[in-house]
Amino acid sequence: MTEGKHIAMFGGDARQLEVVRFLQEAGAQLSLYGFDQLDTVDTSAVKKSWQTADLSNTDAVLLPVSGIQLNGTIESMFSNERVELSLEALKQTPAHCKVFTGIANDTLVKLCHAANRTLIPILDRDDVAIFNSIPTAEGAVMMVIQNTDYTIHSSKVAVLGWGRTGITVARTFHALGANVFVGARSSSHLARIEETGYTSFHTSDMQAHLNDVNICINTIPDQMLTKDILQTMSTNTLIIDLASKPGGTDFKYAEELGLKAILAPGLPGIVAPKTAGQILAKILSQLLQQNDEEAKGEVS
Amino acid sequence: MTEGKHIAMFGGDARQLEVVRFLQEAGAQLSLYGFDQLDTVDTSAVKKSWQTADLSNTDAVLLPVSGIQLNGTIESMFSNERVELSLEALKQTPAHCKVFTGIANDTLVKLCHAANRTLIPILDRDDVAIFNSIPTAEGAVMMVIQNTDYTIHSSKVAVLGWGRTGITVARTFHALGANVFVGARSSSHLARIEETGYTSFHTSDMQAHLNDVNICINTIPDQMLTKDILQTMSTNTLIIDLASKPGGTDFKYAEELGLKAILAPGLPGIVAPKTAGQILAKILSQLLQQNDEEAKGEVS
Amino acid sequence: MTEGKHIAMFGGDARQLEVVRFLQEAGAQLSLYGFDQLDTVDTSAVKKSWQTADLSNTDAVLLPVSGIQLNGTIESMFSNERVELSLEALKQTPAHCKVFTGIANDTLVKLCHAANRTLIPILDRDDVAIFNSIPTAEGAVMMVIQNTDYTIHSSKVAVLGWGRTGITVARTFHALGANVFVGARSSSHLARIEETGYTSFHTSDMQAHLNDVNICINTIPDQMLTKDILQTMSTNTLIIDLASKPGGTDFKYAEELGLKAILAPGLPGIVAPKTAGQILAKILSQLLQQNDEEAKGEVS
Amino acid sequence: MTEGKHIAMFGGDARQLEVVRFLQEAGAQLSLYGFDQLDTVDTSAVKKSWQTADLSNTDAVLLPVSGIQLNGTIESMFSNERVELSLEALKQTPAHCKVFTGIANDTLVKLCHAANRTLIPILDRDDVAIFNSIPTAEGAVMMVIQNTDYTIHSSKVAVLGWGRTGITVARTFHALGANVFVGARSSSHLARIEETGYTSFHTSDMQAHLNDVNICINTIPDQMLTKDILQTMSTNTLIIDLASKPGGTDFKYAEELGLKAILAPGLPGIVAPKTAGQILAKILSQLLQQNDEEAKGEVS
Ligand SMILES: NC(=O)c1ccc[n+]([C@@H]2O[C@H](COP(=O)([O-])OP(=O)(O)OC[C@H]3O[C@@H](n4cnc5c(N)ncnc54)[C@H](OP(=O)(O)O)[C@@H]3O)[C@@H](O)[C@H]2O)c1
Ligand SMILES: NC(=O)c1ccc[n+]([C@@H]2O[C@H](COP(=O)([O-])OP(=O)(O)OC[C@H]3O[C@@H](n4cnc5c(N)ncnc54)[C@H](OP(=O)(O)O)[C@@H]3O)[C@@H](O)[C@H]2O)c1
Ligand SMILES: NC(=O)c1ccc[n+]([C@@H]2O[C@H](COP(=O)([O-])OP(=O)(O)OC[C@H]3O[C@@H](n4cnc5c(N)ncnc54)[C@H](OP(=O)(O)O)[C@@H]3O)[C@@H](O)[C@H]2O)c1
Ligand SMILES: NC(=O)c1ccc[n+]([C@@H]2O[C@H](COP(=O)([O-])OP(=O)(O)OC[C@H]3O[C@@H](n4cnc5c(N)ncnc54)[C@H](OP(=O)(O)O)[C@@H]3O)[C@@H](O)[C@H]2O)c1
Repeated sequence: MTEGKHIAMFGGDARQLEVVRFLQEAGAQLSLYGFDQLDTVDTSAVKKSWQTADLSNTDAVLLPVSGIQLNGTIESMFSNERVELSLEALKQTPAHCKVFTGIANDTLVKLCHAANRTLIPILDRDDVAIFNSIPTAEGAVMMVIQNTDYTIHSSKVAVLGWGRTGITVARTFHALGANVFVGARSSSHLARIEETGYTSFHTSDMQAHLNDVNICINTIPDQMLTKDILQTMSTNTLIIDLASKPGGTDFKYAEELGLKAILAPGLPGIVAPKTAGQILAKILSQLLQQNDEEAKGEVS
Repeated sequence: MTEGKHIAMFGGDARQLEVVRFLQEAGAQLSLYGFDQLDTVDTSAVKKSWQTADLSNTDAVLLPVSGIQLNGTIESMFSNERVELSLEALKQTPAHCKVFTGIANDTLVKLCHAANRTLIPILDRDDVAIFNSIPTAEGAVMMVIQNTDYTIHSSKVAVLGWGRTGITVARTFHALGANVFVGARSSSHLARIEETGYTSFHTSDMQAHLNDVNICINTIPDQMLTKDILQTMSTNTLIIDLASKPGGTDFKYAEELGLKAILAPGLPGIVAPKTAGQILAKILSQLLQQNDEEAKGEVS
Repeated sequence: MTEGKHIAMFGGDARQLEVVRFLQEAGAQLSLYGFDQLDTVDTSAVKKSWQTADLSNTDAVLLPVSGIQLNGTIESMFSNERVELSLEALKQTPAHCKVFTGIANDTLVKLCHAANRTLIPILDRDDVAIFNSIPTAEGAVMMVIQNTDYTIHSSKVAVLGWGRTGITVARTFHALGANVFVGARSSSHLARIEETGYTSFHTSDMQAHLNDVNICINTIPDQMLTKDILQTMSTNTLIIDLASKPGGTDFKYAEELGLKAILAPGLPGIVAPKTAGQILAKILSQLLQQNDEEAKGEVS
Repeated sequence: MTEGKHIAMFGGDARQLEVVRFLQEAGAQLSLYGFDQLDTVDTSAVKKSWQTADLSNTDAVLLPVSGIQLNGTIESMFSNERVELSLEALKQTPAHCKVFTGIANDTLVKLCHAANRTLIPILDRDDVAIFNSIPTAEGAVMMVIQNTDYTIHSSKVAVLGWGRTGITVARTFHALGANVFVGARSSSHLARIEETGYTSFHTSDMQAHLNDVNICINTIPDQMLTKDILQTMSTNTLIIDLASKPGGTDFKYAEELGLKAILAPGLPGIVAPKTAGQILAKILSQLLQQNDEEAKGEVS
């Protein structure tokens, strides 16, 4: 049960508001650090200053989707001042307290290690990545509509990657009436692509399949659209690269060739912050509950 | 055959360029009036000045999608000067010459009547309206993504109207994972809506069905979202009104209630001018051919 | 309201049982003629003998889906004796009494005319035909699976006709992963077929499109698969003809050519009598209600 | 390349004929053991007697989908006599020769071990299982249509399992218009089920979700529909159990309760032997080629 839990939230963006709302409804006691400019919270959430944070009673610490910066500060849309989670503050927490973040970096890993607290990066989870793939795909749809003068319907769309994001992107463009071609490398992925109703091709064979597509959407976090491949593509092709920075495209070379290629990171937070926040909130509240059950030795 | 036909085009926007391209490839002889700032046409198309237009040899006159203005002038994206089709010029055309326009108004109807030339408003055609419903629906998708902070997937969407546009809009939002409710009034429409996999409701019963939708898309060219109905809707609902001006929504009252309601006319020309132009070009070229066959008494 | 209405049912098959159930729940008073072998009805339905039928109190007469035979008798699955609706009996009904049947023939039309009672053939209605197209399409699926040694998925399927049945058949086979080609003749149908995601062709051009299909499903009640067309088809093609007798196929010639062609009438009653009965029951009960409202002058 | 390869086929059913056809077209030299009643093969395939089999030249041995029996014999639809693959014969093969089978059992494993030859059970492969899931799902559709009196459209269908078969079964019934509920146990499966558009539930929570379904299709090879669960289900529910023998249902108890439950093994070979054969043939020919490349040290 989330009820009665003490949770300390440090910074964040619009998505965090959904988390606040969700946890409040679930009866959690929230202490908000770096939310001074926010006034839409009710009494179960108390805005506090991070400098004087007392976490001795805290069951869970929530960091933003972006985690903490390399220099240790935390971004917050709801405050002008910088927010920080100090090692001292974290050490004050009870031993069972866990630190939840969207993504983790070295700084955060070290901090939690030093404080001997468990760190849980929730964007790594398969279920979160799958739910996030939905706003990502809708963001890709929006970008394609904005950047073409023809319809997605009847266009030829190549999707690179049949992972958590690629599956959803393929479904979405196919649903809109595009002819969808999906590039993957495992034989079971190629079989599933065909079963689902798309055309499959092996990524080792991209040159033969990308030369006449209208739109190419990359979801593979690897150098896919290299010089060799880009050279074989039509200059009319629009490339949307969803893989996280630096993406899978040689953007400089694409520009030289006159190919429009767009790196589009962070779409869930841009096109559907509310949904993205709800995804986090739902998983967080499940994890908090499991946390609890484990503490009580009730794990099923 | 379009080959060898003399066609006079007066003004237009990006869509007309597709028509030019298509007709050129089909071997037509084009005279372009009001295209002075355009330089992407080859020799089979000759830019001319409308003041000195000689249409005595012309098999067909093409007007823009918007037709002519009430004051008789014609809009052109490719010229700074105003363009006109005078009665005198039209009278010079051979008797078999037809006038093709997107939409017609009184001024145009009278002009053609006075010149005794057949007027063909092609946007009225069912096939054109159905093909145009595709970019319209994609435009609606773009607007919804831009104007919400949640995903279309899993949202509740009401579509009003099961005509040429409504069918496509419903298919599109359903394909994206929305729960689609469609309002119509004929029993056969209600049956088809259910068969296709959506939930149907009778438009006389809107109040019971619109009060909890996230998004309401109107395609009915009638006063549908009146004060009475708007009052029953949640202020969180986004209204996209696709019906042509003035739309089916009491926009003033919606604003008073704090409901976001957007009139979104002319989407095909905005989101997919190339596709929209190709739709026109394809139909025009079929019609020119039929025209020909009729003239030759070869109609099948 | 169906409540309290006196309804006389004459004969029928499994579908009629759903009608009985539905009307009983709605509070109607049923007199059942030709149901002597049925024992699953409760007290609100009374089994009677047609020879001594007294219809003087009857608000509606319900005939089976098949109506009455040319010789005036009525088929019943629930009786060994023949059932009849005599002119005398029908004349006894109050003037407002209507006769509902699935389909009508000359004999029935004359009978009602002679008795001066309104005859309503409900299978003619668009909504009923659309709802019935669902079990029809599922029946076609079953027949195709039974009569081929390959999957529907990835096969090439031609559907002839884009009417109430054809639309549903096309949707169903496309949903199962077939490559669907639909033949129609109106330009708006051809446009809608493409918008929905299938390939369209004009029925005047069948020869070019049927020569390599795996499966051809006809829904057009006209001579479509004539000698000329059959000759161009592969002998491996399976033909399922859904058009009502005699179908649209030259079956004799198909057999000579070694083409497997199956006339498949009455699928709803065969594969889903319960659903087919519910469709009838739902519409009947709407019609009875309207009937009532009209009588009371309450028609909206 | 399959060209020029010597392949010995031992027994099989209709599926093997597709394999024969495919390999012949690919230029393989086939020796057929246990095909004496078959006469549709051309000269590149030679029917031989297994008693005098000389496999000294053989690059690959192909066994049927069912492999060999526990007593060492091999089933063949095309012969009245029993067929056998003796240890002596197998030992004669060159060291690089591999043995391909659909499924393997102890007898076969021991045989290959004794002969020191690699055994490749191809039905275990993910790609083969995914392709086979298509005829399996179509078989399930056929069985459901045959065993219900209502349509799949609008019915409530529970699918247990989100593996290679369950994904396809869910897609297929959803495509036909059913309301699909899928039971799985991993959080990423539950997320993907929702993203795809179905309702998900945890298999630990079956009782709450199976009590009002029309159809329950099990694909989980474990005891799922136990007494406890069956007791909570409606006696109108149809159970189709696709899991391999003995299935996941307590069939005896289901019968006691009056629940119709059908174990439906081997559907691909029953409803679409040709497709099932082509799946095997395609993979076999890929594997033979890889085999070759490995032998030549050309593996990529
Ligand atoms: N732009 C946004 O808003 C946004 C949103 C969400 C995610 N992302 C990013 O999108 C990317 C994909 O995320 P995901 O969740 O879909 O990851 P994922 O589930 O791991 O999928 C990645 C896919 O790439 C394939 N792959 C990797 N290397 C490959 C190679 N060299 N050749 C062929 N295929 C290869 C993998 O195939 P195998 O299974 O064969 O290894 C896998 O299917 C990540 O960079 C993620 O950060 C961006
Ligand atoms: N925004 C854009 O970019 C864009 C693009 C294309 C079209 N449009 C506009 O969209 C509108 C619809 O176009 P369309 O091509 O879909 O027209 P349509 O095919 O004629 O469809 C209109 C539908 O509205 C229904 N309807 C009319 N009055 C009604 C009422 N009082 N109650 C319930 N239903 C009613 C009709 O139903 P019945 O069949 O029962 O009469 C019909 O199904 C038009 O105003 C058109 O100009 C806008
Ligand atoms: N087997 C069964 O179990 C079963 C079940 C239901 C119905 N049926 C039968 O199926 C048939 C179709 O029923 P339905 O309800 O779909 O009828 P429908 O709605 O009238 O559709 C018939 C279609 O055929 C087209 N058509 C007619 N003549 C044509 C021609 N010469 N060339 C091209 N197209 C032509 C019509 O096109 P236009 O719009 O251009 O005229 C229309 O789209 C009927 O015979 C019906 O009795 C059988
Ligand atoms: N009837 C036919 O014609 C036919 C055709 C093909 C296959 N089959 C049979 O169908 C069955 C499934 O085949 P498949 O290829 O789909 O296998 P699969 O890919 O391994 O899928 C099995 C699924 O069952 C789940 N599962 C296993 N134990 C579970 C449990 N206790 N609770 C909840 N989920 C559980 C697994 O989930 P996790 O991923 O969470 O482990 C997995 O998703 C096999 O028995 C196979 O032989 C029959």
